[in-house]
Amino acid sequence: MALIVQKYGGTSVGNTDRIKNVATRVAKYHKEGDQVVVVVSAMSGVTDNLIKLAKEIMPLPTEREMDMLLATGEQTTIALTAMALHSIGVEASSLTGAQAGITTDGVHTKAKIQNITPKQVHAALDSGKVVIVAGFQGQTQEGQITTLGRGGSDLTAIALAAALGADLCQIYTDVDGVYTADPRIVPSARKLKEISYDEMLELASLGAKVMQSRSVEFAKKFGVVFEVRSSLNDNPGTIVKEETASMEDVVIRGVSLDKNQAKVTIVGVPDKPGVAARVFNALADGAINVDMIVQNVSSNAGAPATDISFTVDKPDLLKASRVIEGLKQEIGYRQSAADEKIGKLSIVGVGMRSHSGVAAKMFETLANEGVNIDMISTSEIKISVVIDLAKGEQAMRAVHKAFLG
Amino acid sequence: MALIVQKYGGTSVGNTDRIKNVATRVAKYHKEGDQVVVVVSAMSGVTDNLIKLAKEIMPLPTEREMDMLLATGEQTTIALTAMALHSIGVEASSLTGAQAGITTDGVHTKAKIQNITPKQVHAALDSGKVVIVAGFQGQTQEGQITTLGRGGSDLTAIALAAALGADLCQIYTDVDGVYTADPRIVPSARKLKEISYDEMLELASLGAKVMQSRSVEFAKKFGVVFEVRSSLNDNPGTIVKEETASMEDVVIRGVSLDKNQAKVTIVGVPDKPGVAARVFNALADGAINVDMIVQNVSSNAGAPATDISFTVDKPDLLKASRVIEGLKQEIGYRQSAADEKIGKLSIVGVGMRSHSGVAAKMFETLANEGVNIDMISTSEIKISVVIDLAKGEQAMRAVHKAFLG
Repeated sequence: MALIVQKYGGTSVGNTDRIKNVATRVAKYHKEGDQVVVVVSAMSGVTDNLIKLAKEIMPLPTEREMDMLLATGEQTTIALTAMALHSIGVEASSLTGAQAGITTDGVHTKAKIQNITPKQVHAALDSGKVVIVAGFQGQTQEGQITTLGRGGSDLTAIALAAALGADLCQIYTDVDGVYTADPRIVPSARKLKEISYDEMLELASLGAKVMQSRSVEFAKKFGVVFEVRSSLNDNPGTIVKEETASMEDVVIRGVSLDKNQAKVTIVGVPDKPGVAARVFNALADGAINVDMIVQNVSSNAGAPATDISFTVDKPDLLKASRVIEGLKQEIGYRQSAADEKIGKLSIVGVGMRSHSGVAAKMFETLANEGVNIDMISTSEIKISVVIDLAKGEQAMRAVHKAFLG
Repeated sequence: MALIVQKYGGTSVGNTDRIKNVATRVAKYHKEGDQVVVVVSAMSGVTDNLIKLAKEIMPLPTEREMDMLLATGEQTTIALTAMALHSIGVEASSLTGAQAGITTDGVHTKAKIQNITPKQVHAALDSGKVVIVAGFQGQTQEGQITTLGRGGSDLTAIALAAALGADLCQIYTDVDGVYTADPRIVPSARKLKEISYDEMLELASLGAKVMQSRSVEFAKKFGVVFEVRSSLNDNPGTIVKEETASMEDVVIRGVSLDKNQAKVTIVGVPDKPGVAARVFNALADGAINVDMIVQNVSSNAGAPATDISFTVDKPDLLKASRVIEGLKQEIGYRQSAADEKIGKLSIVGVGMRSHSGVAAKMFETLANEGVNIDMISTSEIKISVVIDLAKGEQAMRAVHKAFLG
């Protein structure tokens, strides 16, 4: 008998038929003698409708009331899911985040889980029931309803698995697991049997958005092993866990392509202390998230000068360009340029640490494809390059073939 | 500075524009220095949609989960109403039934309020905020979410008014107040300035369904004076309160016509002890609610026999007839008959106690209209007659004219 936490996203519970399918799957585990805790999201579309209602009332709705409003989405799903289990003869009890004992800080719309005291969860499990918990929500110690922000339901599942000491945590989604690359772009991409937290984190933050980084970070911190798998079939998914020795045998776990970045280049920046700090402070003040930063000595003659390039999310490009324009007089750079047509291609793998020549092989592969490299950035387990967007998918296939076949 | 509890029903908060109207009205009181607690229902249609979803999953949804599901309806409205107040610069805070301290018993879908400890309500009022409370819901001492059944939001408002010692409790609805008769049937009907709890109770149970009886009973028990008024205009409504001496000056407060009753007659029932008990026990076992009961000595020769007539709600007629048919052998009555085409016409007024000849005047009025009386039933402050449904409205107008002009 195992204690299993299962999480089903908005698509998996998108209508009453799908909720019945979820119930059938849960019942199978329950009938085999497992204790099952099910975490569900709002039915797909429901949260958007609630946001639309709120915006009809005021453009920037108050955050406390937004939480009060959005929490109803998951509460609806837990009740319907419990009913679906009852309808096939399985005892089940639904619990809101508050009832499940999920205590958060008071930062409405993006609260952090502080602790979990799942008394009602234990009581229901002990009496043989399946427990259905509303994802994405909690309450403060003062009894205020909060929500956890994007990816909050995954976080609820992983945090509950940690608090309950679950044997297994399954994240059901609309993909089969984590792949070596996006199969829509790379037909030869394979599903991974396992992946380390760190690799998953690099892939998550690189646009292979199976899960939000914070849930993976939480799992890493509390050592929660979880499986990403599909709610549409019975295929085994991908296990995400702490790195093992055998994982290093594989040089590269996966390849990802982020098409949502844009590049800003500042040319002829005076090469003196404090200039870079001034640039990136100004961007931070504008709440612009900067990803890659590259600085090179400029080949320009005359006064010492450098070029600085950085990438931002595409929607932030205009704002970022304006910030940089505004600094022209103060800093005295020569010119600036913006480029939307870039792609960020990355390879990720803990095996990189013990294998040399990985970067060289990647650059050579790109050269052979006639792909020019704009920027390079590396971490211990990742190499990213910025290239021409038009050649992004071709480059991805070539790199995947070189490393993963 | 007064403490006012206002309740707005589903139609009054039926869309975001109407919610804004509610906010404007609330803001007016708040700006005059009053403390305002607002109780709201689910937006009209929302509860029906939730019930439809539940029935897609199972025909008879579990009651605990039904409460979990339906409670989201009011929670949505409180958040939107608080936002609407924020959008016009009024500080406001929403509270679920549980957060407002409304504790109920554990009878899901028709829980009874056991006590109210409105700590969070007081705290928010003390800090100058308008408080928006979800009607229709509460929680048990063990933290289970419950709903109060039909008319539950009125009950929330009246119970909160009692617990808070409110100066005023206003029930906003889509009618202007309580009338001497339904103005759609009796054009000369007038809005009442005031009415006693008992009169309101008789009218409520007689089909003039401004409010459910249980809310009025609760108000009477705790001496909560409340006003029934329209959310569509600023007209004063009808005050419902304990009977005063001057109320007795008016003989008849109002006339009502209930078209939703049907009559069953059992002819030739052996006149011996225990027969009536057998009949009405059998109906009770079938969960059939019986309203009027009349028994007469039969004019039949031979063995002593009586006729028994009773009325039930129209949807229960078939079931009632079957129960009576099933008793034929056991009791040995001669025959039974059912009649759907009846109307129950009633006059109500505490003045009846001190005025004689009221019944005679009613019967004479009906005779003059050529309306035959089938059954008569009286209480201290009410006279009801069952008549031909086809003549119901004509009879109502005549009786209203005779007593109320």
